[in-house]
Amino acid sequence: MRSEPIRVALLGCGTVGGEVARLLTEQAGELAARAGAPVELAGIAVRRPDKHPELPPELLTADAAKLVTAEDVDVVVELIGGIEPTRTWLLDALRAGKSVVTANKALLSEHSAELSEAADASGADLYFEAAVAGAIPLLRPLRESLAGDRITRVMGIVNGTTNYILSAMDSTGAGYAEALDEASRLGYAEADPTADVDGYDAASKAAILASLAFHTRVTAADVHREGIAAVTASDIAAAKMLNRTVKLLAICERVTSEDGGESVSARVHPVMIPRAHQLAGVSGAFNAVYVEADAAGELMFYGQGAGGAPTASAVLGDLVAVARNRVLGGLGPRESAHAGLPVRPMGQTPTRYHVSLDVADRPGVLAQVAQVFAANGVSIAAVRQRDRLSTASLVIVTHLAPDAALESTVDEIGKMDVVREVVSVMRVEGEDQ
Amino acid sequence: MRSEPIRVALLGCGTVGGEVARLLTEQAGELAARAGAPVELAGIAVRRPDKHPELPPELLTADAAKLVTAEDVDVVVELIGGIEPTRTWLLDALRAGKSVVTANKALLSEHSAELSEAADASGADLYFEAAVAGAIPLLRPLRESLAGDRITRVMGIVNGTTNYILSAMDSTGAGYAEALDEASRLGYAEADPTADVDGYDAASKAAILASLAFHTRVTAADVHREGIAAVTASDIAAAKMLNRTVKLLAICERVTSEDGGESVSARVHPVMIPRAHQLAGVSGAFNAVYVEADAAGELMFYGQGAGGAPTASAVLGDLVAVARNRVLGGLGPRESAHAGLPVRPMGQTPTRYHVSLDVADRPGVLAQVAQVFAANGVSIAAVRQRDRLSTASLVIVTHLAPDAALESTVDEIGKMDVVREVVSVMRVEGEDQ
Repeated sequence: MRSEPIRVALLGCGTVGGEVARLLTEQAGELAARAGAPVELAGIAVRRPDKHPELPPELLTADAAKLVTAEDVDVVVELIGGIEPTRTWLLDALRAGKSVVTANKALLSEHSAELSEAADASGADLYFEAAVAGAIPLLRPLRESLAGDRITRVMGIVNGTTNYILSAMDSTGAGYAEALDEASRLGYAEADPTADVDGYDAASKAAILASLAFHTRVTAADVHREGIAAVTASDIAAAKMLNRTVKLLAICERVTSEDGGESVSARVHPVMIPRAHQLAGVSGAFNAVYVEADAAGELMFYGQGAGGAPTASAVLGDLVAVARNRVLGGLGPRESAHAGLPVRPMGQTPTRYHVSLDVADRPGVLAQVAQVFAANGVSIAAVRQRDRLSTASLVIVTHLAPDAALESTVDEIGKMDVVREVVSVMRVEGEDQ
Repeated sequence: MRSEPIRVALLGCGTVGGEVARLLTEQAGELAARAGAPVELAGIAVRRPDKHPELPPELLTADAAKLVTAEDVDVVVELIGGIEPTRTWLLDALRAGKSVVTANKALLSEHSAELSEAADASGADLYFEAAVAGAIPLLRPLRESLAGDRITRVMGIVNGTTNYILSAMDSTGAGYAEALDEASRLGYAEADPTADVDGYDAASKAAILASLAFHTRVTAADVHREGIAAVTASDIAAAKMLNRTVKLLAICERVTSEDGGESVSARVHPVMIPRAHQLAGVSGAFNAVYVEADAAGELMFYGQGAGGAPTASAVLGDLVAVARNRVLGGLGPRESAHAGLPVRPMGQTPTRYHVSLDVADRPGVLAQVAQVFAANGVSIAAVRQRDRLSTASLVIVTHLAPDAALESTVDEIGKMDVVREVVSVMRVEGEDQ
């Protein structure tokens, strides 16, 4: 083992950073054995050093800009988040030849090209396993284990807060507002839950997953995004009637057009999936991601998607890899955007819809409704009709069609005289058993 | 990208080797982009070159010993299996500085020390993702993603043949012999199923998993091994009564003694697990492995554990990694046996038992049976008693106790006059709900 240590600058010392600092000290011997050299903290940048009496004062600094390019720093671990000034600090660090380990999904989903280029230019490493699905080893398998395969689809639950809320709505029948209140009270939702419930967090992760899976550049702006605020108790009840449940999924697909041209699609929205589907059983704050590849077939990864210790585990795994690369020479996998595939707009992405309607209880209504689907080129997979007092309920599940065609079908149906109410509209994934 | 190719010697061209050869040709452009250089076949060693008209004749050779050390070979991909002469060929290749990618679990579980030392000495890579759980990216996460964490337990279904047979017994009520016949007929069991049904295959995998997870050396001989041939329809029925099912599990644990000393335990045997357990839902030829670590918490990996294409996916992922290391400089993770923990014998490993008895239907029997448990220091967690005509059925689940104490308890109970038949004895894992 080399005696000269690998020296680490830690940016941010909140829940995750605190765990990283603790484990770096407690597991020092183990980490050194695995990295091939001692791994030491060179400094910790925090906004208010006087607020951290638990940390060694000689390590603390408020001057992150200076710390990231300090002579004796080998690796920068960034756990602050946000775009600026973090982006500038990490670019400065990479340009100075420091390797970077970050959990910053927002930054990566917008600026990974710039960061990768800076890393390439100076021969530094850029690792970010903790940015998606917390402790679950997911990015390394995508980048490395499946490097000889052709990934066709990545689909998963990548946001714990929304999964907690939807699980609660499913099990208690509560509405969205009530379930969100409960999640906030128990600490599963932030004071400002926008990034989670409106799908921004999941969209950043979808951009990172799609980029790695398809070797092409996908940014957060390329991801179609719908959150869960519009999911109603009626939607959940409609799903139950079909033996399904509602999950917020990130779905990244390779799509082949009729002319054989390839493109990719990345989207985040609520989906009805069969209760027998493995993702349906993932409840509370857990994450799970399905990967489909030509040779490997179906794979699933499951574990804790957030939290101090789980995220710190992923950060330390990256830190050991980066340290080993410094000790032995060599570099981790680079960004691979060589495929350069276009991103298909949501309107052209094939999806399937579930539509639940209250209609006038008189003959011929189904025929009229079915005619609207047909006129829009949408094929119906299944219909259930049930009579009530003066109305009938009509539940329709479609085959795959371009999302825009489905959307305009639903628009038209909503305006029909015979349709009293559109009770629930939601995309579906997975076969019924 | 480098123009000089990475040249690959392929040993064996059966189901997996054929897929690897096919993908190397079909995906040549993609693989080159990911590896940083073209990846080309330098030769294919097969026993009878004349039996392979589908392969380019100029690549075929029967002389594996010569191929593995040929001047123009950079990487050897071994898909022959068995110990000798494969061991000699791979040692020769590593000593000549060739990197090795292998799926040979039997060889690795007995000779990994020797192979690792040869790789270290010449600065070559040794990768073997395909040796455990086929296409599932499992070894790379253990070696790399979790390198900064402390793994406490690895538990999973790592043999598809036995899982298929046990799934069939569970769903049809068939006995072992009948289910095995069916599996053979459908191609899920080999003509000689010994390696699978007697647990040798799973034990090799357990040795590899324990070594990587605990950074210590565990060989196949260290693994306690029981196959599924003794699992009866009564065992399956007893499990059903408890809302459990029977799976053949590989279980690797870090065990801390009362004096604080650490050791590891590795075992393969049939286990009753609750039907609500995620591993209970893994049916047919699929594999799934749970990993528990201090910081990461619970993780699960799921996918196809065998088959030509899935295994080839894992081999190619390793091949790309090894090729990248050649192109960029650097080396993959080495064997890490630095922890040097002792392997705890099965008798001292804490387990829990389920025991189902037919006993004489008279007062005081439960007290007598309970007395035997107590005398052996085994604490009872739950008892169910049911009267039949002239006998009563007694079902006991214990708390954790050393396996040897449980075994001698069951021996003694079997000899009691009041016990008419020991209907089922099996270890249990997982909490009841």
